Amino acid sequence: MTTREEALAGLGRIVLSTDPDVTASYGFDQSRFTDRATPPIVLAPTTTVEVAECLRVAAEQGWTVVPRGAGTGLSGAANGAADAVVLSTHRMRSIVSIDPVERLAVVQPGVVTGDLRAAVAEQGLFYPPDPGSVAISTIGGNVATNAGGMCCVKYGVTGDFVLGLEVVLADGRVLRTGRRTAKGVAGYDLTRLFVGSEGTLGVVTEVTVRLLPAPREPLTLVATFGTLAAAGEAVAAITASGVSVSMLEIMDRTTLRAVDRMARMGFDDDTAAMLLVQSDAPDAAAVLADVEKACVGAVDVAIGEDPAEGTQLLEARRLALPALEQLGDWLLDDVCVPRSRIVDLIDHIEAVAADEQLTIGVFGHAGDGNMHPTIIYDESDPASRAGALRAFDRITRHALDLGGTITGEHGVGRLKKDWLARELDDTSMAVHRAVRSALDPEGRMNPGNVF
Amino acid sequence: MTTREEALAGLGRIVLSTDPDVTASYGFDQSRFTDRATPPIVLAPTTTVEVAECLRVAAEQGWTVVPRGAGTGLSGAANGAADAVVLSTHRMRSIVSIDPVERLAVVQPGVVTGDLRAAVAEQGLFYPPDPGSVAISTIGGNVATNAGGMCCVKYGVTGDFVLGLEVVLADGRVLRTGRRTAKGVAGYDLTRLFVGSEGTLGVVTEVTVRLLPAPREPLTLVATFGTLAAAGEAVAAITASGVSVSMLEIMDRTTLRAVDRMARMGFDDDTAAMLLVQSDAPDAAAVLADVEKACVGAVDVAIGEDPAEGTQLLEARRLALPALEQLGDWLLDDVCVPRSRIVDLIDHIEAVAADEQLTIGVFGHAGDGNMHPTIIYDESDPASRAGALRAFDRITRHALDLGGTITGEHGVGRLKKDWLARELDDTSMAVHRAVRSALDPEGRMNPGNVF
Ligand SMILES: Cc1cc2nc3c(=O)[nH]c(=O)nc-3n(C[C@H](O)[C@H](O)[C@H](O)COP(=O)(O)OP(=O)(O)OC[C@H]3O[C@@H](n4cnc5c(N)ncnc54)[C@H](O)[C@@H]3O)c2cc1C
Ligand SMILES: Cc1cc2nc3c(=O)[nH]c(=O)nc-3n(C[C@H](O)[C@H](O)[C@H](O)COP(=O)(O)OP(=O)(O)OC[C@H]3O[C@@H](n4cnc5c(N)ncnc54)[C@H](O)[C@@H]3O)c2cc1C
Repeated sequence: MTTREEALAGLGRIVLSTDPDVTASYGFDQSRFTDRATPPIVLAPTTTVEVAECLRVAAEQGWTVVPRGAGTGLSGAANGAADAVVLSTHRMRSIVSIDPVERLAVVQPGVVTGDLRAAVAEQGLFYPPDPGSVAISTIGGNVATNAGGMCCVKYGVTGDFVLGLEVVLADGRVLRTGRRTAKGVAGYDLTRLFVGSEGTLGVVTEVTVRLLPAPREPLTLVATFGTLAAAGEAVAAITASGVSVSMLEIMDRTTLRAVDRMARMGFDDDTAAMLLVQSDAPDAAAVLADVEKACVGAVDVAIGEDPAEGTQLLEARRLALPALEQLGDWLLDDVCVPRSRIVDLIDHIEAVAADEQLTIGVFGHAGDGNMHPTIIYDESDPASRAGALRAFDRITRHALDLGGTITGEHGVGRLKKDWLARELDDTSMAVHRAVRSALDPEGRMNPGNVF
Repeated sequence: MTTREEALAGLGRIVLSTDPDVTASYGFDQSRFTDRATPPIVLAPTTTVEVAECLRVAAEQGWTVVPRGAGTGLSGAANGAADAVVLSTHRMRSIVSIDPVERLAVVQPGVVTGDLRAAVAEQGLFYPPDPGSVAISTIGGNVATNAGGMCCVKYGVTGDFVLGLEVVLADGRVLRTGRRTAKGVAGYDLTRLFVGSEGTLGVVTEVTVRLLPAPREPLTLVATFGTLAAAGEAVAAITASGVSVSMLEIMDRTTLRAVDRMARMGFDDDTAAMLLVQSDAPDAAAVLADVEKACVGAVDVAIGEDPAEGTQLLEARRLALPALEQLGDWLLDDVCVPRSRIVDLIDHIEAVAADEQLTIGVFGHAGDGNMHPTIIYDESDPASRAGALRAFDRITRHALDLGGTITGEHGVGRLKKDWLARELDDTSMAVHRAVRSALDPEGRMNPGNVF
């Protein structure tokens, strides 16, 4: 057995740093209220072979390993854990190939989502997944969290675009999953097992994604409401009508004001909630006319002709979280409820805010029933902190009671691991552990995450 | 420990039969060249509780268990294995609920696919998955094989519509996977792990499927070609053009003649190949005009105005396999290649047919690159049988060489288990075995299948 020093020397320039001043910034993601630690070592491999080497050395040295993309996660899934080495993919940024005929791309995990989207767009192709963090998060992180975004209401989540993966397992073996064909059922769907596994089963080193032909320029509808509940009712009416839109987002007054302060959109102060709806269908005008009809309780409905305006509104929506950050400390939830229960969820959030005397910004992917209530509080005030946690628990609990889930897209991470056993039952938890043990018997991948 | 007789008595009316004259017909599916055996016992539970009882008794008695839907499989996956008890779901035929607001349905596994499609259609809803066997196969079987069909080119495969499952594990524990919300990332995607697992991980006892609003009545285009290769080139041109169709099927001369004999469609004898294309998009006419442009080498292209005619053509296409059965003994392949390689695959099939002096009917889901070359041979002639097997191997091998897969939708089963290790590598096979052991440590589910 080699010593730690020999092991580090052997890894050579793969070792980014062992200096806590440097490694500290690799010890947390964008979440709050999650356990974190300064990693003793940050590794930054450039190739699959190097990742395998890292994991073999880790196995030999008995290190645990936290895989890390851009650290934009909102559940603490990429946080450092005591003594765990961080393996960052930021040097694995190559777009290996784009195949316009088969409509697929092969990329390294550290590629920034937006960079892939831009590269394929140049060839008239479309990679739909678009988390709010599209400009900063990585494909590897998106795969590991099964990231959602605004496209999901029409196009689905990241996993729906992953055809195959290359993964380095905890013991350094390299596993290939999936295929390059449109269909295929040879063996278990290991690709989907790794999608959303939050770094607990191995390190994704290559991703093959499915692409679509570039969509039409979307038409955009903006509807404003005097109450949040009225907007919720419009969402329920739109989804019940069965009309297929390519985006259906909601922002409440708190969020709108915060965004306006940042982006000077000139939003009306009287607006309690706004719906942002797009259609990229060939009959987009007819689709949006149906949407308008469903917006019965709206104060105002406007259908934009100008694509640039639509893009601008989308950018504004992407600012929701950064803008709310300006209001104080925040604790973000990510519940998803059956679409018809969205009004109930919104009512509940408003009641909790009133009850706990807290500001809660509400925004999210309304069309999927996936909401991000963002609790604003004061970290320096223990009572405020306790209230925030209570509000968070009450909202998450209520989502479960409505037949929903504790996490629509941000993942369990370290933030919600106590919640997982409330959503899943004992058998499911046991099966989860058995699957994890099958792939990582020593529990060395991302310890303390999810479970 | 109870005796076999006590165990059977305890199961009571769940035991359908132990009489080989009865159980024999539960010992095989629609495949050829696959190992089979007459099951000693056929169990036919009606509820999840009864399935769990079956598996607990099986565990206690040391029985192995083959789950069975309608037995329409084409890979021998539901075949009896020596001493294995068959658990048939044919008494689990209840559509538990259809929720038009959330657009989902909950069904028992023995529900026939077509019955579910009809039931939801009555409520203006659409369950897309439509294997050729739609009128006879079960949802449980479709889930266990991740069945495809003609809808896949636009809508995807069975797994894309499964939101959640209830599964009884080998030891009798009941596992619930998935959710009722549009999105959700709490825990591993166990739903997708069971989809396509061919009865090797447990018995699916309830399926929650996602539904869509009823689509528009499709427009149909029929294109005929003087050579199979010309049809293949049209397929490549259509898919490369990026135009999105809702169906893109191919039938060659052998298949057309066989179908014509059965259904008296009046197909022209000179036609070497036919493409059947549909669009249910709002701009279907424009879509099919683009398709027509891509059919450069066609002898004739006709766009049907009459929906009834489209339905009739679809029915004809569904007859492909039953019609080819009339020509003699058959061995059906199910390869899937990258869409751009379809011409190469077709050329190869024609060369193999010439070489081996065999008739090979070619039909399939051309839009997905998923073809079903059907080798006609004479079972009573050892040379013919050997030639059929050689042809099968050459075609499957070539599909792999083209970057394709050994099975696009029919599954590995007992037919292709030797092939699995040729498609997957050692690490993947080891991971498959580890996952299987995690869920069924004693290997009691569907022994000898897939692995
Ligand atoms: C402003 C903002 C908006 C956001 N909007 C959305 C949104 O709309 N939808 C959404 O889903 N999320 C959203 N997020 C959350 C976050 O961006 C996503 O979870 C994203 O997928 C994380 O990617 P990352 O590269 O930053 O991963 P990290 O945060 O670094 O890691 C996330 C998880 O992935 C694992 N991981 C990363 N790379 C690999 C790899 N190569 N192999 C194995 N495991 C790996 C980590 O171990 C960790 O468990 C948002 C975040 C911010 C800050
Ligand atoms: C004429 C014809 C056309 C066909 N066309 C297509 C097509 O277009 N696309 C396609 O994909 N297939 C097609 N098939 C193949 C077949 O119909 C499918 O594989 C179908 O999904 C099998 O369903 P089944 O109920 O008959 O399952 P079975 O054949 O009984 O079983 C298939 C597998 O599923 C398992 N299984 C069944 N029920 C359960 C359960 N409840 N829990 C766990 N495991 C279970 C079995 O153990 C076995 O491994 C066709 C078959 C025929 C005869």
